[in-house]
Amino acid sequence: MANVTLKKIADTLGISPATVSKALKDYPDISSKTKEKVKALAKQLHYTPNPFAQSLRNKESKLIGLIIPQVVHHFFSNIINGVIKAATQKGYLVIVLESEESYEREKDQINLLIEKNVDGILLSLSDKTVQYKHINAIIDNGIPVVLYDKISKLINCSKVMINDRKASQQATQHLIDSGCKKIAHIRGPLKPQTTIDRLMGYRKALELNGISYDDSLVFESLNLSFEDGYQLAQEIVEQHPDVDGIFAFADLVATGALIKLKELGKRIPDDISIIGFSNWFLSKVTSPSLSTVDQPGFQMGETAFELLYENIQDLKNGQSINHQIVEISTRVIARDSTKTIN
Amino acid sequence: MANVTLKKIADTLGISPATVSKALKDYPDISSKTKEKVKALAKQLHYTPNPFAQSLRNKESKLIGLIIPQVVHHFFSNIINGVIKAATQKGYLVIVLESEESYEREKDQINLLIEKNVDGILLSLSDKTVQYKHINAIIDNGIPVVLYDKISKLINCSKVMINDRKASQQATQHLIDSGCKKIAHIRGPLKPQTTIDRLMGYRKALELNGISYDDSLVFESLNLSFEDGYQLAQEIVEQHPDVDGIFAFADLVATGALIKLKELGKRIPDDISIIGFSNWFLSKVTSPSLSTVDQPGFQMGETAFELLYENIQDLKNGQSINHQIVEISTRVIARDSTKTIN
Repeated sequence: MANVTLKKIADTLGISPATVSKALKDYPDISSKTKEKVKALAKQLHYTPNPFAQSLRNKESKLIGLIIPQVVHHFFSNIINGVIKAATQKGYLVIVLESEESYEREKDQINLLIEKNVDGILLSLSDKTVQYKHINAIIDNGIPVVLYDKISKLINCSKVMINDRKASQQATQHLIDSGCKKIAHIRGPLKPQTTIDRLMGYRKALELNGISYDDSLVFESLNLSFEDGYQLAQEIVEQHPDVDGIFAFADLVATGALIKLKELGKRIPDDISIIGFSNWFLSKVTSPSLSTVDQPGFQMGETAFELLYENIQDLKNGQSINHQIVEISTRVIARDSTKTIN
Repeated sequence: MANVTLKKIADTLGISPATVSKALKDYPDISSKTKEKVKALAKQLHYTPNPFAQSLRNKESKLIGLIIPQVVHHFFSNIINGVIKAATQKGYLVIVLESEESYEREKDQINLLIEKNVDGILLSLSDKTVQYKHINAIIDNGIPVVLYDKISKLINCSKVMINDRKASQQATQHLIDSGCKKIAHIRGPLKPQTTIDRLMGYRKALELNGISYDDSLVFESLNLSFEDGYQLAQEIVEQHPDVDGIFAFADLVATGALIKLKELGKRIPDDISIIGFSNWFLSKVTSPSLSTVDQPGFQMGETAFELLYENIQDLKNGQSINHQIVEISTRVIARDSTKTIN
């Protein structure tokens, strides 16, 4: 409301909102002539930034914070995009911070956001975060928090995530349905939960299809990098020449494996089928193109903001916050790195 | 300064900065006991949020705005990352907005940022922006603006960009040095300036090597998409079977061309060499890997913030803003889609 009036004054006088705001605050770099004009019109429009209005504006800053583990990452870029698009539509601005999976940084960044009077925070927990006092504290202080992607059952707030276990089960089932009999899994490092869930999903699919789980077919990628996939593919075929399918934790890892296997003269998908996870842009441009599980980042970002917005409305209406858990559904995208299913 | 004290009070009393700030503002949801404690300590630390302090904080919000054409884009993700990293180090938070190449949106977003009292704005001009009143207005109002990537000579402020003409000349020269005689160019749409500059660079390289420029070898990609490259590659070989090199405006376009040429049975680089532009992540994972020109987004983002920070310091020290123009240097990254140079 206040800002609307500010803009109206600016447009009427043909000056920038900055000038209006500065004139009302008696900044020295604004001419007294302009200050007079602005204040006269402000009075006429009943725009008096009194303490009450101030505190109102402090209470509702129309700013939200988005703490993201990694900015340069296709999935997270899409989340940033979804949040910004949804927030802009509702007139909110988004402060973006990168936690780089650091618990300390996550704590500091939450404090910084609180000091900026943000109306709420969207957070994906860092892999290092093991206790949640710093998050529960602000929730108790009536500042809405929505967890996205990496969440915890121990935090009582709205959440949006995918079902990693179900998604990995889908991916493995796709390999089985397309005729794979001996499937290796390139997993992520022990923690975080996502890598455990994806391993469980792989295991579940095998069991449901009467394929016994074999520990020696699970390989660990510590950095989830292209190079990891490239290296592990070699180990897989050396240790298990009869492997005919690989489910990799991430497209980046799958792409490394795909390129190494081609170098080793393997035909993809005929000799070995590969499926990744995330549906990164790059999965479309490898040759053969990479089958994968679509992890809808944009939709997750949009939903995360919408949940936060509803929390903010609850607060404004003096109601207690209604926490919602939203599970974004995933689907297998079958491309040329897996055989067609008859 | 004020925030430091706020945090100190919070840490000392073992409560969140939000509670401190709310206690000082007499929010109803804070117990009077807590309010007493906070106010006592605040007084002891000489932390009195008086109007002067208020206006100081208004003047220095430690918030900056980053207006980016497109969030989900490897080059721009790297810019966002560079800005956030550099800003965080100096204790600034970054509001990220997406202009989507819309002039209207750019204007609105600048106003929104001004109303949030940002200390400065980092802006890459939208392709549609043809007049600069809205930008010069805020510069005149003493709010520092730094232009990055897409700049204009008509705006008097600090700028950071690459030299597109020089970079494209390097790319074309690399094809010539590796033995290409007949080089096609896939250019972008007429505007913006970058596509014109890259065409000029291509032309310049040809001239310097005594190769006469041929209009029919220049193909226009309207969407700078993977599909565009895929389609245009077909046209190129149909219309000019003897083309032995292609310089594409962007890696995405080059990747589309590369995959189509392989489908057409062309050997890369022996029959046709391809070089792209930007050094997107995907250029490493195509097969053969794509030679390209590195466009250092992270460095551009870092530099853009540093220039803005210096402007902000100039203002704080009551000096006039010292405008700097920084050109980030680019280099050719030779991979397997071009022949090795003897």
